[in-house]
Parts: sequence; structure tokens; C-alpha cells
Amino acid sequence: MSLNRIGIVGLGLIGGSIGLDLQKIGYEVHGLVHKEQTRERAKERGLATIISTSPEILSNCSVIILALPLSQIVHPSSELTNALPRHAVITDVGSVKAPVIEVWKELHPRFIGSHPMAGTIETGVEAGRRNLFQNRPWIITPGKNNDEDSLNAIKELASALGSNWITTDPQTHDEAVALISHLPIFIGAALLKTVSEGSNQDLIKLAKLIASSGFEDTSRVGGGNPELGVAMATHNTSAILSALDSYFSSIHSLEEMIRTNQWIKLKEELKSTQQHRRSFIKPNKIN
Amino acid sequence: MSLNRIGIVGLGLIGGSIGLDLQKIGYEVHGLVHKEQTRERAKERGLATIISTSPEILSNCSVIILALPLSQIVHPSSELTNALPRHAVITDVGSVKAPVIEVWKELHPRFIGSHPMAGTIETGVEAGRRNLFQNRPWIITPGKNNDEDSLNAIKELASALGSNWITTDPQTHDEAVALISHLPIFIGAALLKTVSEGSNQDLIKLAKLIASSGFEDTSRVGGGNPELGVAMATHNTSAILSALDSYFSSIHSLEEMIRTNQWIKLKEELKSTQQHRRSFIKPNKIN
Repeated sequence: MSLNRIGIVGLGLIGGSIGLDLQKIGYEVHGLVHKEQTRERAKERGLATIISTSPEILSNCSVIILALPLSQIVHPSSELTNALPRHAVITDVGSVKAPVIEVWKELHPRFIGSHPMAGTIETGVEAGRRNLFQNRPWIITPGKNNDEDSLNAIKELASALGSNWITTDPQTHDEAVALISHLPIFIGAALLKTVSEGSNQDLIKLAKLIASSGFEDTSRVGGGNPELGVAMATHNTSAILSALDSYFSSIHSLEEMIRTNQWIKLKEELKSTQQHRRSFIKPNKIN
Repeated sequence: MSLNRIGIVGLGLIGGSIGLDLQKIGYEVHGLVHKEQTRERAKERGLATIISTSPEILSNCSVIILALPLSQIVHPSSELTNALPRHAVITDVGSVKAPVIEVWKELHPRFIGSHPMAGTIETGVEAGRRNLFQNRPWIITPGKNNDEDSLNAIKELASALGSNWITTDPQTHDEAVALISHLPIFIGAALLKTVSEGSNQDLIKLAKLIASSGFEDTSRVGGGNPELGVAMATHNTSAILSALDSYFSSIHSLEEMIRTNQWIKLKEELKSTQQHRRSFIKPNKIN
């Protein structure tokens, strides 16, 4: 086993980007892909040092990153799990953590959940790029059974990629991403549904003509990849339902202020939300 | 009266921008401002040909544009209304139309409502800029009492500024902007409220660390100018309440699909919202 030999399962946006960066800083990267065609293209792009469609390529890797879609992380093939060396530290890149930990705590003694946050909309073997993780959060969700060395290996990896690692428990992670990443999908989708599905065609026509940047921004993730929205809803159901429940309270309270003409109270609320946003967004991003 | 003499009341973002563009294409622009200090700065910036704090400057203008905040358009001073020549065509720039028409149909025989859509967040005498209206919608809401010449004067003005004019009735306008511009404010504000006001401080802290572009975009107008949000709620109350009511149906139906694990139905819905967004946003703007 070499400490500098990292395995990556899947060379899409996340896996390919990790592969490019790690090679640049001296790691030997072993990439496992599913199809021969992907292997050829990944090799052309230099996404890993050695690339194969055979899981044997993972033997003798010190750390193995499962850079697969969430459904494949939660339902791994036995071909994959059998190929993972017991001594290696295994991590993943899934955007939901509790269901991943639930499965993997039974499958491998050195599995530690990870969520590198660097989403873009691109996918596939063409998507990987340099410096995708620079200054981005990388959340690690260690369990009580994880040894210190395993945790340090993942922290080192995240740091080597320029990420800012954060540790938390899987439940808090899943609630936070439900609020920050998943709730906006359903909020935006509901806005698009509302504006598009009324019975007044003249109104919809005018709305389409005048839709501007405010509408574009508020609806952006709500009009995103349907598969992604469903995957989040499927794997993070209870945290999303709880986030929606809180959201209903918030929006109903604003609606009540409008309905009862409580303008002073509404102004205080909108002052608060303006302040809240400033505390969320980096100063150079406020617009 | 000169056909090339246009009056502008208020030289903020909208008034100042109109003044800059109209002068460039040969109009004589008479600007009325409230304060001496504004007059001096507006003169330095060349926002109008002649600028005064005295309403007399509006006499002999063929078209007069009330480029004032909505509350001042709805509650105009008698000093202003007395200074408006009866022969001139009067228009405004307010982002809600029914309450404006309600007031102005009694005040001036040639008033026609306008809503040039070119919002930016800047305001005041420094905000005016060239080409603000280029390729942007300019909605005109004529009433039955308006003569053809008045309507043509406003259409010509909008075209001269590079806008695409659209005519509709005040009610349809107000419902469309409620859906497209005002609903996103309260949707986004409720998101910020939900994420910021929970009792779990660890969760809020993590949420702030990981908030990313999806959250930033969805919450942008919800974290905007509180005065603007309250002005819209005050002057467009019933259309906003009706938009919120439709929105509640939409988001509750999505919530029900998640709660009852109707993943196939949810995927169809998210495919629809993805399609809907494409029909709203210009192709080069989809992201």
C-alpha cells in the first residue's frame, strides 16, 4: 500500500476533478470506470494516472473515493464492495449523508462519509476540471467507530484539494443541505408551476414577456435537473419535509401580515431577511 | 408647445436614464426635482437640458413623465398636479398600475399609465445611465377615455428609448407583476426566515458555511430593499394575495408528492417546471 496512491470510483465532474488536481500535486491516481468508452476518453483527458474498467485497480490504494451518483453509493454493487481493500480508508461524495452511513457502516470498517460541495450542472467524463474545490466547503461526517487516522486521511485529502473541511454529524449535515440546497429546488419549482399553470392565458403570455432577473434567479434551481430533485427528495425525505414544514410557517406568517395590512411589521420582517442574507452570503457576493 | 419638449418629474434611476437617452436623440428635456442639491448634481451629470425645482418648468412640455416613487405617484402634491398643462400627455413609471389609474383618471384627462421595466437596485441622482431601457419591456395601460394621440405619444417615447412596448389593462398588468416580480420577494424572504430563525444554532452555523449559488439566487430578491417590498405589498395587495394563494396550492402539491413518496409524479412535475422555465427565460439566459 502506498500512501500516495488514491483510488477514485467514477470520473465524472467530481471524480474527474479530484483526479486532475491530485495528480498535479504528486499523487498516483487509480481510476475505476464502468464503460470502455469512458475509460478511453478519461485517459485522453488525463483524469487519472491509470484508468481501468476492472475493480482490481483499487487494490493497494490507501484512500478510495466513491465519486458515484447518490443512488449508486446507497446501492453499491457487490463487485465494487468486494474489490475495496479492508486497510484502505473509503469515502464518498454523496450530497446526503445519513442513508449513506447507514449502508456503509455495515460494508466497510474504515468508511467515512464526505460531501465536497462544488456543484455545477455539468456531468460525465467531459465535466472534470482543475481547482473545482478551491475554497469550497468539504463536509466530513465521521462516526464513533471511525479511527483517528481515517479521519485525518480525509481531512488531508480535502486540504490538498484546497477545500475547507468541516466535520459534523450526518443528521445535522442532511438538515443543513435540506434547508440550503434542497428546499430552494421545491420553492423555485412551485413558483414556476404557479406562474405557468393558471387558466388565464393572456396573463401567462404577459408574464413570459416581462419575466426578468428577479424571476430568473428565484426560479433557477427550481427549473434544474429533474433527476437531481427526485434523488434529493428520495434520499433526504424527512429532512426536506421538515424544512418544508418550517417554510410553510414562514411564508404563511408573511402572508398574514399582507392580508391584515401590517405594514410596519412586514417592513421589520423584510429588514431582518435583508440582514439574514448578508450573514449568509460573502460580502463580495451581495447584490 | 413643442413636440420635442419632454418633462420629467424626478431624476432618479428611471427619470435620469430617460433624460440622458432623450437628449442624445434630440429631445429638449425639462427636469423637475425637489431639492436644490439634487438640481445641482443632476445639472453636473447632464440628466436634462434644463433642470429646476420650480414646477413652472413643465409648462409647454408635450409629454410629462412622472418618474417618482410609487407612493408619490399615488399621492401627488397639488403643487405638481396644478403645474401639469391640460394639453400635455402625462405618464408615470410606477410598477403597479390599477391604484395609479384610479387616482389619475380624476386628475388629468390625458394621463396614461406606463411601467418601463428596467429595475436595478440603485436609486437617486447618481443612478441614471444611458441605454437602461434598450430591449426591455415597457408596459402601457391605456383606459377607454384615452385618445389615440396620447397613446401614440407614449408608444413613440418607449420606442425612442429602445424599449419594446406592450399594451394591456391595469388589472392584468398588476396580476402579472404580482406573479413575476412581487411573489419572488416573499418566496425568497420566507426562505431566509426559515433558514435563519430555527432554534438549532449548530444547524444555522453549518447552513451559513455551506450556502452556495442555489441559495444565493433563490434568496436574492427576498433579501432586497425592505421599502420596495412593503410598497409592492401596500399598493398591489389583492394581486399579491391571490398569487400567494396559487403558490400555496403549488407548493403543497409538491410537498404531498414527497410525503407520499410519489417519485414518478414528482419527476414529471420537475420535468414540467424545467420546461416552463425555458419558456420564460431567453435561450441565452438559461443556466
